[in-house]
Amino acid sequence: MTDTVKFTLPENQIPKDWYNLAADLPSPSPPPLHPGTGQPIGPDDLAPLFPMALIGQEVSMERTIEIPQPVRDIYRQWRPTSLHRAHRLEQALDTPARIYYKYEGVSPAGSHKPNTAVAQAFYNKEAGISRISTETGAGQWGSALAFAGALFGIEVEVYMVRVSYDQKPYRRAMMESFGARCVASPSEETAVGRAILAETPDSSGSLGIAISEAVEVAAQRDDTNYALGSVLSHVLLHQTVVGQEAMAAFELADDYPDVIVGCTGGGSNFAGIAFPFLGAKLRDGGSDLRIVAVEPKACPSLTRGTYAYDFGDTGHLTPLVKMHTLGSTFVPPPFHAGGLRYHGMAPLVSHVHELGLIEARGYDQLECFEAGVTFARAEGIIPAPEANHAVKGAIDEALRCKQEGKGQTILFNLCGHGHFDMQAYTDYFAGKLVNQEFAEGEMAMALAGLPSVASG
Amino acid sequence: MTDTVKFTLPENQIPKDWYNLAADLPSPSPPPLHPGTGQPIGPDDLAPLFPMALIGQEVSMERTIEIPQPVRDIYRQWRPTSLHRAHRLEQALDTPARIYYKYEGVSPAGSHKPNTAVAQAFYNKEAGISRISTETGAGQWGSALAFAGALFGIEVEVYMVRVSYDQKPYRRAMMESFGARCVASPSEETAVGRAILAETPDSSGSLGIAISEAVEVAAQRDDTNYALGSVLSHVLLHQTVVGQEAMAAFELADDYPDVIVGCTGGGSNFAGIAFPFLGAKLRDGGSDLRIVAVEPKACPSLTRGTYAYDFGDTGHLTPLVKMHTLGSTFVPPPFHAGGLRYHGMAPLVSHVHELGLIEARGYDQLECFEAGVTFARAEGIIPAPEANHAVKGAIDEALRCKQEGKGQTILFNLCGHGHFDMQAYTDYFAGKLVNQEFAEGEMAMALAGLPSVASG
Repeated sequence: MTDTVKFTLPENQIPKDWYNLAADLPSPSPPPLHPGTGQPIGPDDLAPLFPMALIGQEVSMERTIEIPQPVRDIYRQWRPTSLHRAHRLEQALDTPARIYYKYEGVSPAGSHKPNTAVAQAFYNKEAGISRISTETGAGQWGSALAFAGALFGIEVEVYMVRVSYDQKPYRRAMMESFGARCVASPSEETAVGRAILAETPDSSGSLGIAISEAVEVAAQRDDTNYALGSVLSHVLLHQTVVGQEAMAAFELADDYPDVIVGCTGGGSNFAGIAFPFLGAKLRDGGSDLRIVAVEPKACPSLTRGTYAYDFGDTGHLTPLVKMHTLGSTFVPPPFHAGGLRYHGMAPLVSHVHELGLIEARGYDQLECFEAGVTFARAEGIIPAPEANHAVKGAIDEALRCKQEGKGQTILFNLCGHGHFDMQAYTDYFAGKLVNQEFAEGEMAMALAGLPSVASG
Repeated sequence: MTDTVKFTLPENQIPKDWYNLAADLPSPSPPPLHPGTGQPIGPDDLAPLFPMALIGQEVSMERTIEIPQPVRDIYRQWRPTSLHRAHRLEQALDTPARIYYKYEGVSPAGSHKPNTAVAQAFYNKEAGISRISTETGAGQWGSALAFAGALFGIEVEVYMVRVSYDQKPYRRAMMESFGARCVASPSEETAVGRAILAETPDSSGSLGIAISEAVEVAAQRDDTNYALGSVLSHVLLHQTVVGQEAMAAFELADDYPDVIVGCTGGGSNFAGIAFPFLGAKLRDGGSDLRIVAVEPKACPSLTRGTYAYDFGDTGHLTPLVKMHTLGSTFVPPPFHAGGLRYHGMAPLVSHVHELGLIEARGYDQLECFEAGVTFARAEGIIPAPEANHAVKGAIDEALRCKQEGKGQTILFNLCGHGHFDMQAYTDYFAGKLVNQEFAEGEMAMALAGLPSVASG
């Protein structure tokens, strides 16, 4: 009898609802504030950027929100994704731990991002929107929204962080294959971009800057909305299909995680895998489940940032949200995990961290690539640099189990493949990759500029 | 009620046997000959290159050959692959045809190639081999064997056709991620390579040259065997898991193909999808199933080549096989579908073409990329340039159905994704891609050098 290597649910077990953690939390997360008034914002403040359906999801306290049938129909192309048991990695590590990974790289765009991109495109189409602007780091989000836009006949314009635009030219080609337009950020196309280029002509860009540019464009035109690939609560909500499927697949496996590991940039893939399990723990109590968020040491919002009200973008066009932040003007060094180069953390992830419901941990770039190569040689899948942080976290947990002689069950989210990040692997093999330092002084300067409501 | 978009078999329906078309053919395909004696070769002639188990499969007349359990265990990581119904492509084409594709790009290496790579690595490991040399065109095969080598602890050395090595640097990074070594071919590492470089220093290489180099290396060392990613009958055999799964999935879909389309370079993905259906047609009779092989107009072995005994490689180190050939010294122009740049065609595919059991058709590079982009925008998957030939063939069949008002069922093999071929798409969008001319004069010269046994 051979051990099972993958647990795949039948198509009719694609979740019918998204799961909303807010319904199960002991206290609500602080509301977004209007930067001018310092008062909580209302739906009308967000209406120029988002369709009302998404604004409603952003503040909903309902435990479940039904997934529209057209969205589930598109999910069915690649969902349910399999839960894999990493037998060969376990053998390579000689650990008594059982390591599982949920593999989201089988989606058309190669990551978990289409889970929310398809939903967002659907609601925008319903609202009569014909054009969406957005930002992207490594390009996973931009290509996911480009894919979704192609399906719904929506024009997509992507501001791609300059360093990733240069490092990952083929992500651009992928977005163009889906019919989207891709612009390096900071760009000359927006007031925010021009101002930053005037001051820093060789700016490597950041997600904070790219968000400002995309928001500026969307705010100017009635036919154009903005879409965000992470951070916001409705985005995290859409990703909970990942964790819900994982829970059901663990029933097939007759197992249950002791530890869940996810990488965190804006927080959406982490929330997607973790929140359904966290909700079950909050409702049922008694579980010893640990949840570990892993981030780059060079952009350590959860482990080194301040929990305060801050802007979501560098150009200060967004509402203020309470989150772990390195300061909205903090520009992370140009490491390869572009999807993790964000100065803040999802308010909901920040909130559960403050509540002590999750742990956080930072890793350097090189140890993450080392873990990724170990994983690739054992399991045959080359992870995205972002996902390497989760791989490293899972491997460390497995080695702890070995040291402690414990046969624990570890689950991590392999949120995307690295097919468009091979220059990073090439550099790694050539010994050209280095660890990037965390610019502590730059954080201090950025935090000094926190909006005055920050103490509120 | 929404139409089903994918048909996925349960894991226990991964085929237990490979299907051997030879058992059902009305006449056997001509045997390989020894180039010195002109006599049929025996197992001992091949023993320096291949393990005896594969040599046995090469000449077997058994209808089914059991898949070893360790091979099926590895297949289970990504098999059974789904059969997808391309509803959105049908809508985009406004065709009454039902278009299905079997998607092999979900494998770790991104194509159908691991189906045989894993099997070949298994049998070599069983035979005590610690090192395998091989060639690769676009890199799909090289990365598949690198993956399989990593799983079985076998060292892998890949001679990669120079033009693809330059066009697709990230394929090399993938092979290195799996621990393999990758060398641009022609190289200075072999006598064959040095001779070609002496004559043509800027040679863009070809599969025929790379095969010679890999064979030379394998022949020199007892611990080293050679592996081929296509052409040979045992390779085609291993790929029949694709067609067998498709047949079973069509039962779920309550449908059956009228037309099957596959792209042909060496012939293995085409044979993989088509042979199980062809065998059923030969055994049961009465079916109107058409099978269409699609190849590049610039390397048209089936549509323009001669059916004759020829060498499988440019350096004339292999046995003579009877196949459709452009001449073993023919070097195809450097178009982007590197996996289709082979001067010959699998003897078994050539034989069934001679028997009138399949059709063949050639397409130019640009129309294939146009088809690939149409497919990507409708279905969200960016095909490999090789697979674009099958996409183009399927689209043309669907448009014929539209013209004739026929609701036929079309199946094609989407044998791999294009994630490592994005430079080609970038060039296509930039208008830099051109159709490559078929060098008819070069073929005539190459065919003039056919071995004298060719008339036999």
